[in-house]
Amino acid sequence: MSESENTHQLLQQLLTVVSSIQHDQKALTAAVDAINTRVNSLSDVKEVTSVATSSSTVFVAPQSPLDDGSISSSAVQKKPTPSTSKIILTTYPGRMGIDPLPMVWGHANAKERGPVVVGRGPQTHGRRNAIGAHGGSYSIYHALALATQELSADHRPDFTNTEPVCNIGPFPQWSDPKKIVAMDPWGHLAPEIFKSNIDEGIDIRPTIAVTKAHMHLPELEHSVKAGRLKVDGDIVVNELGELAVTKFAVEPCWYLPGVAERFGVDEGTLRRSLFENTGGSFPELITRPDIKVFLPPIGGLTVYCFGDPAKMSDRSVKLSLRIHDECNGSDVFGSDICTCRPYLLFGIEEAVKEAQNGGSGVVIYFRKEGRALGEVTKYLVYNARKRGIDRASEYFKRTENIAGVKDMRFQALMPDILHWLGITKIDRMLSMSNMKYEAIVNQGIEIGERVPIPDDMIPADSRVEIDAKIHAGYFTTGKVLTMEELSTVQGRAWEDVDH
Amino acid sequence: MSESENTHQLLQQLLTVVSSIQHDQKALTAAVDAINTRVNSLSDVKEVTSVATSSSTVFVAPQSPLDDGSISSSAVQKKPTPSTSKIILTTYPGRMGIDPLPMVWGHANAKERGPVVVGRGPQTHGRRNAIGAHGGSYSIYHALALATQELSADHRPDFTNTEPVCNIGPFPQWSDPKKIVAMDPWGHLAPEIFKSNIDEGIDIRPTIAVTKAHMHLPELEHSVKAGRLKVDGDIVVNELGELAVTKFAVEPCWYLPGVAERFGVDEGTLRRSLFENTGGSFPELITRPDIKVFLPPIGGLTVYCFGDPAKMSDRSVKLSLRIHDECNGSDVFGSDICTCRPYLLFGIEEAVKEAQNGGSGVVIYFRKEGRALGEVTKYLVYNARKRGIDRASEYFKRTENIAGVKDMRFQALMPDILHWLGITKIDRMLSMSNMKYEAIVNQGIEIGERVPIPDDMIPADSRVEIDAKIHAGYFTTGKVLTMEELSTVQGRAWEDVDH
Repeated sequence: MSESENTHQLLQQLLTVVSSIQHDQKALTAAVDAINTRVNSLSDVKEVTSVATSSSTVFVAPQSPLDDGSISSSAVQKKPTPSTSKIILTTYPGRMGIDPLPMVWGHANAKERGPVVVGRGPQTHGRRNAIGAHGGSYSIYHALALATQELSADHRPDFTNTEPVCNIGPFPQWSDPKKIVAMDPWGHLAPEIFKSNIDEGIDIRPTIAVTKAHMHLPELEHSVKAGRLKVDGDIVVNELGELAVTKFAVEPCWYLPGVAERFGVDEGTLRRSLFENTGGSFPELITRPDIKVFLPPIGGLTVYCFGDPAKMSDRSVKLSLRIHDECNGSDVFGSDICTCRPYLLFGIEEAVKEAQNGGSGVVIYFRKEGRALGEVTKYLVYNARKRGIDRASEYFKRTENIAGVKDMRFQALMPDILHWLGITKIDRMLSMSNMKYEAIVNQGIEIGERVPIPDDMIPADSRVEIDAKIHAGYFTTGKVLTMEELSTVQGRAWEDVDH
Repeated sequence: MSESENTHQLLQQLLTVVSSIQHDQKALTAAVDAINTRVNSLSDVKEVTSVATSSSTVFVAPQSPLDDGSISSSAVQKKPTPSTSKIILTTYPGRMGIDPLPMVWGHANAKERGPVVVGRGPQTHGRRNAIGAHGGSYSIYHALALATQELSADHRPDFTNTEPVCNIGPFPQWSDPKKIVAMDPWGHLAPEIFKSNIDEGIDIRPTIAVTKAHMHLPELEHSVKAGRLKVDGDIVVNELGELAVTKFAVEPCWYLPGVAERFGVDEGTLRRSLFENTGGSFPELITRPDIKVFLPPIGGLTVYCFGDPAKMSDRSVKLSLRIHDECNGSDVFGSDICTCRPYLLFGIEEAVKEAQNGGSGVVIYFRKEGRALGEVTKYLVYNARKRGIDRASEYFKRTENIAGVKDMRFQALMPDILHWLGITKIDRMLSMSNMKYEAIVNQGIEIGERVPIPDDMIPADSRVEIDAKIHAGYFTTGKVLTMEELSTVQGRAWEDVDH
């Protein structure tokens, strides 16, 4: 082979290699384009150059190509305000500035357990070990107060003199991570126990508050006048039937692995459903599997304790207790379509009597309006009942047709408050609900007698509900109607309501 | 030039080109690395190969390096379940599958206005034109029902017979986007007006329900017995003081530009604060500036109307009206530290009397427990008051020390329901609140007489609150105390409560 031929061959080889490189480079360029598209597609955001003080990735929302602005006069402000220069859409574990305070749910020592940290202030954001916000659904009002600058972003609560009015626990149940999964057992003492964290600038707030009060209920005044209830100057303080009471307000605080277990689903399914089915709220439910605690935007519960609070956990004295789920239309406004307020008042009176007899009386009020379906759905059901024939035999079907379920109250988490109060047995359960009964007994708390609402306290129109419930499993000392008999139990029709 | 020289020159050129390619390729590789780092930094997610049915970007959360799993037995399930193969952390306008149903807030024609679509089902997700979820905070229970499969994901409500029990509007106010910004004026008729959308598989639900009921309140029974209220068989139906009432339950539905304007902030600030200060919920508040409607996870309101509902908007007859903000401890349990239940009952009685006199009587109940601070904060304030000296002069300071504000109720959105009911003037306003008064008058609704709670209905211990409020601007026909006088108005101390 001549030198020329040799050179030519080399050039050919070189050309092949260069062509190959060129080809690859084109593919690579296309790949970069694709990745760029994906980056834009992923985030639709522009990186901001300001340094994040607490966390990793920093974004601002883009100008929207679809922003129709049809009626709006004020467009969305894209420029970050001076004090808040970054938007973190969600966080991830292991990033710079993400350093949650340790949290060992169920640890017997409160400091070892660690505080629930859910604040979003600059010194707190990276140390959060809980998803959600304080105040349940009232966090929305908190956000409005900050938006309007009615509330200063750097306000820190002064907890002087706010501590509980009585001691409670700690009970062994507080350190059993299977027994308390839906509230923070140290929630009432947080400002005291975690003072050093607060002093470091971490925003820590109580999720439980304990106070005392006087109550005046006209029904109870009547009980005193009728001689059913006697004035003792201690619990029933006077002839008006005024009651002295210790009250506990509790905000929900969920330990997600425990909540999932209580519902018999895996934690991932629970997190996924809580994220997806609340309108895609709290993406950290998905991106922060390291955070196990969630403060959901729902109402909590209130405990009304008559007599010495220490007696609630004293097995040597009797305990009468009612679990009551909110029904604003009856509890406040006295609607006669259900037995809610009558049963509540019966529960209070029985609780007071037990306390007067040296035992303990407790009423616990859960914010679960309309079987946790809310009042709009409840009214839709009322209309469907009253426009059809309002038969006890059709009662549950009306709700199922609209809501898809009979009831959405989920009593599975309810017994936590009983564990927290140190209750291990209930002598007189002032409720007919089989769901409440089973949830409590399944948690290892004994129930002695079950006490139905007296027949003479049942409003006529609410027979439809109570008979349907008894047929479906509610406890009664009376008769369980057959399906045929249920069809004869009818409520008032529209023409009777429409006076 | 010899052939050899020629070849050499070519080789030189070739080398230059190849070197250039090499240089570019190195840069390109570095760029690809940088982009990849950015992608991971942006999302920390891995793309899933399954095809998204409704939307664009599809992610699963990564294995967390920080997942401590200290107590948890069940790890977060990373594998998507068969029925739900994708997690969309947030959406962006203009993406494949994102095609919101048109929404022209304030349009006089309901169909042109368009339905509020907030569902997350497969046929609905991409058509959403609202952020949030139905049911306010009860969406959390809805999520639990779906997680436990108590509720089928494909359940669609049967709205047969659920329609409102009376006609209301439409009023000109319904098509004034400045007058109604916090509720959907077509929310009660959604199943009927948007039937064709529902038939196409879009999940559309009412946000308002209207029913009627009988109420029995012991205080009103007493009013009948005392001769203050007479039985007419129509509104007061019998000697027990039972009342016939029309009730409207309303869930919040916020038009964000209008809400921002009402609060005097720009829409971006409002969105940002609602996102950040609720624990980073609803990232679409940031990423979807094209969506203008938000259904927040808070409680709504209930209207109790006595007499013919058509009279509420009839300027030729008198209207007595009370706006009442929830106070569970007093409204249900009769706590004597405030005037809430007494004023509510006075409001109901006055409303009933107005209706009996041929006018209209209305009580509206807003779910704003403890000045929208929630019950835990309320109890903390009670403790701080009672452990100090509970002086009227210190009353507001106690709340400010803890909550950072006196009050978080924000009456700015409250008048919407009045506009919706067609109310243009209130003859007798059964409230002393200057904040409520100003909010209503600022919305162009006239207020005639303002009616304070009668002195004999004020519980002794609640004088601290009412005198402090009067000093701060609450309406009174009586005396406004000086600051010095306020310091002499003292409530019961702990030793008096602790019987």
